[in-house]
Amino acid sequence: MSAARQITFLSDFGRSDVFVGLCHAVIAGIAPDAPVADLTHDIPPHDVVAGALALADCVAYVPGAVHMAVVDPGVGSRRAGMVVVAGDALLVGPDNGLLLPAAQRLDGPTAAYRLRAPRFRRPQVSPTFHGRDIFAPAAAHLALGVAPDAFGEPLDVDRLADPGLPRTVAGDRVITTAVRGVDRFGNVQVAAAVADLARAGLEEQRSLRLVTDAAAYELRRVTTFADLEPDALGLLEDSMGWLAIVADRDSAARRLRLAASDPVRLEAGGRRGEDGNWRVGGER
Amino acid sequence: MSAARQITFLSDFGRSDVFVGLCHAVIAGIAPDAPVADLTHDIPPHDVVAGALALADCVAYVPGAVHMAVVDPGVGSRRAGMVVVAGDALLVGPDNGLLLPAAQRLDGPTAAYRLRAPRFRRPQVSPTFHGRDIFAPAAAHLALGVAPDAFGEPLDVDRLADPGLPRTVAGDRVITTAVRGVDRFGNVQVAAAVADLARAGLEEQRSLRLVTDAAAYELRRVTTFADLEPDALGLLEDSMGWLAIVADRDSAARRLRLAASDPVRLEAGGRRGEDGNWRVGGER
Amino acid sequence: MSAARQITFLSDFGRSDVFVGLCHAVIAGIAPDAPVADLTHDIPPHDVVAGALALADCVAYVPGAVHMAVVDPGVGSRRAGMVVVAGDALLVGPDNGLLLPAAQRLDGPTAAYRLRAPRFRRPQVSPTFHGRDIFAPAAAHLALGVAPDAFGEPLDVDRLADPGLPRTVAGDRVITTAVRGVDRFGNVQVAAAVADLARAGLEEQRSLRLVTDAAAYELRRVTTFADLEPDALGLLEDSMGWLAIVADRDSAARRLRLAASDPVRLEAGGRRGEDGNWRVGGER
Repeated sequence: MSAARQITFLSDFGRSDVFVGLCHAVIAGIAPDAPVADLTHDIPPHDVVAGALALADCVAYVPGAVHMAVVDPGVGSRRAGMVVVAGDALLVGPDNGLLLPAAQRLDGPTAAYRLRAPRFRRPQVSPTFHGRDIFAPAAAHLALGVAPDAFGEPLDVDRLADPGLPRTVAGDRVITTAVRGVDRFGNVQVAAAVADLARAGLEEQRSLRLVTDAAAYELRRVTTFADLEPDALGLLEDSMGWLAIVADRDSAARRLRLAASDPVRLEAGGRRGEDGNWRVGGER
Repeated sequence: MSAARQITFLSDFGRSDVFVGLCHAVIAGIAPDAPVADLTHDIPPHDVVAGALALADCVAYVPGAVHMAVVDPGVGSRRAGMVVVAGDALLVGPDNGLLLPAAQRLDGPTAAYRLRAPRFRRPQVSPTFHGRDIFAPAAAHLALGVAPDAFGEPLDVDRLADPGLPRTVAGDRVITTAVRGVDRFGNVQVAAAVADLARAGLEEQRSLRLVTDAAAYELRRVTTFADLEPDALGLLEDSMGWLAIVADRDSAARRLRLAASDPVRLEAGGRRGEDGNWRVGGER
Repeated sequence: MSAARQITFLSDFGRSDVFVGLCHAVIAGIAPDAPVADLTHDIPPHDVVAGALALADCVAYVPGAVHMAVVDPGVGSRRAGMVVVAGDALLVGPDNGLLLPAAQRLDGPTAAYRLRAPRFRRPQVSPTFHGRDIFAPAAAHLALGVAPDAFGEPLDVDRLADPGLPRTVAGDRVITTAVRGVDRFGNVQVAAAVADLARAGLEEQRSLRLVTDAAAYELRRVTTFADLEPDALGLLEDSMGWLAIVADRDSAARRLRLAASDPVRLEAGGRRGEDGNWRVGGER
């Protein structure tokens, strides 16, 4: 069994350049036995909110890990590089909002430290690639058991940068929210959970009305994709615990023309057509 | 040396979302010393046949491995999740045709079991992400040595789902087949092997005629790309043992406008032009 | 701690096919404890120069590693497969120019050997996939400590193939060079370093003039992206030690319409506009 903690790694680096590979190589040079799971490196460039949302979804599935995340348009400026302690996890990255939602999902940050100690950095630090020179060495040393407070002075956990996530309001039989993200299959995840349906008094509805900026649609409450008729749209609890608008073997996002951060509303009022099927189509 | 078996992982998840990374993280949490090779995650969404073909090509090169494959449009419906025993390999995934061709390549499935035992699943199973909650834990436990029959009741190996692969007919000096796939370099792999050339009496032909829905072309039998003149098209035995239509530093697929599953015919009848070079071009 | 050396892996294989995964699987079958870092697999198909440049940038960050690189349009032809010794590193790949710049960065190749010994190859070698059948097994055996001279006869290190890299001339207050590459963020790396600025007497310039085939632009010397005003263009020393033309949270490459290998000139003559900001825009 490996003695090193597991590391996860998320960034907006893409894989066409050598940035991700160099971070892996630096980690393996320090902690060759630490397993490293690439969560994704296709966060849109500089999109701190998208990175924060993706990371927050993952941390519960990797208990006790070191999570390294780098979406860092301010690299080399005054924003701090830090390690955040949250539950049994350690989060490594810039203090620009990227790490906070993940820490909050893990019952909140209990401590944070600047990454300053030269012995835990590469000998020369590029002002434009802290991933390779600061964050990767920090993650590797943390995986080996170095204590977070060995890296530098504490930061006030109540003053960590907040990314400003999409807000959701559960009213009386209506939920006002936004698209959280669209996955490869075209499933449209919204920033609301089953608990929000309960809060809005909508949990018993067998179908709901989705209102976008362009049109309104009937959504059938389902458990999985195969529950849907070929042309129907469904609403299900997705694998991360969010509500998602889906189709069976088709892209709901393309049919609805929805993308990340678009506003949407869920209301009572789905209805079944005369043919017994659930309707799809624009109608106010 | 690692005591854990090697795991391979193939899916249609892409890498833009965190699906693949979460599966890796779950595996590493259970079997941190098991090497995991990502075969590819760019199988077209829901394309079980493409996934089955890719997996079948790989298994011979990774003896004794646990192969996890997830192309699973019916996730959460009644199709079984299973482990299949074939030769010294174990195949993990849905019973939808994805695993059968790989098992057949390994001398056929000798046993299969449903993945049911709660102690080898994540505590909560999402109806839409069995990769993370059922298949990844199963692959990791199998890599550590858990016996396949510990997962659940046996399935009848003669009734496993068949994906319906492209068919090839070797006749008298003609082979009727289809495009199996196109790789990044534009090489066009067809669902026929050198043995089919022998069967059709074409193995001595220095060149062959390729007939597509659009046109006919001369193909020169070659061993590698560099054997071809700049504008010529060649036919070679590719690295997976299939016949492939290729060009030298150019995309044969683009020149021939061929894509996966397009029908093609190989016949006697290539010919050399008056200038001594092999001809390329449309001609019936 | 792992006893095996670290391996890095770079290619033009992409990730849509199973080529990269099969190489990983072969390596793990021989050296399961060797960490393998994928530098990138998105080198443009057959682009030996791009592969050579990317590899050369990486080797200094992974001391003592085995570097496997495969951009190999001549696979199966007479070009040699080889291992090159350079400093404490071992480079594995084809003798087509791909490995030489990396070896030179590591103080030059001191020895090279053909990869011939059957016991360090897969039993059957495909003429079109030496990555799987020759290079991956060689890298794995080298990572386990097999001596380079066990693989085959020596090659003359003074006659290794040269890829013909972009040339840079530092004249009197002018540097004539070319675009080395464009990264995911649109940063334009040129084939000149800070030392070239010194050589040209330009190191004290707070701003420089960039001349492309299409226009001229003012570049401000900066340390990181956040030093730039929103519409300004900057010149900085990038994380690999090259000069790069950058914008803050924007693609300099798109604004300048520059791509790999385009010629560019850097001169004295940047200037600040009457409003105190650095100018951006075309002007001869």
